[in-house]
Amino acid sequence: MRPLIHPSFEDITVEGILHALSDPVRARIFAEIATSDCSQTCTSFASLGDKPIPKSTLSQHFKVLREAGLIRSERRGVEMLNTSRCQEIEQRFPGLIASIANAYRVQSQRKPRKREAKAG
Amino acid sequence: MRPLIHPSFEDITVEGILHALSDPVRARIFAEIATSDCSQTCTSFASLGDKPIPKSTLSQHFKVLREAGLIRSERRGVEMLNTSRCQEIEQRFPGLIASIANAYRVQSQRKPRKREAKAG
Repeated sequence: MRPLIHPSFEDITVEGILHALSDPVRARIFAEIATSDCSQTCTSFASLGDKPIPKSTLSQHFKVLREAGLIRSERRGVEMLNTSRCQEIEQRFPGLIASIANAYRVQSQRKPRKREAKAG
Repeated sequence: MRPLIHPSFEDITVEGILHALSDPVRARIFAEIATSDCSQTCTSFASLGDKPIPKSTLSQHFKVLREAGLIRSERRGVEMLNTSRCQEIEQRFPGLIASIANAYRVQSQRKPRKREAKAG
């Protein structure tokens, strides 16, 4: 079983956080974890939003979030428990997460005209 | 000559901005443009930082910034003049750019221990 990689506090980078949250699905997964009191298992995100997310895609999203330092994952039998590292990030980069969360909120409140995935 | 693509105000997305600024070189190019009063030509960034950036890489960086809605580019003969769209973005996503710029500033002020490009 592969070890789970978590960057130390000092190794969390802005670019890693921005990259991780530049995917709306990952940003939503992170928001769910961050606003939840108890740990979230990966499977609870399997049908986030409109359509189901394949398990392999979900695992990849969690890996990116984990390696960016946004979440902490812990294996519990066959499940994976995830908690946010919001407090550490707030300490390292004050206001960053809040402003990104707010921007996504603003965006979701406006009716999109025609939006394409334009990450390239 | 290919047309330059600029998203309209309503089509600027959070994910596009985060993706564009998740590359430290692009973030620096954008910061230079945003803090400059006059338009910046692409060539003025050719030796940004420690080592020279190939022209093709630079063009690609400008394309990503432009298509994310962060800058406006204008052809002037053989040169390309770039200005930031900071004010529009501030209007659309208040505080986002400032918090990202601040996070990069915080990061650059701390001595990195050992940093690897970990965008995966």
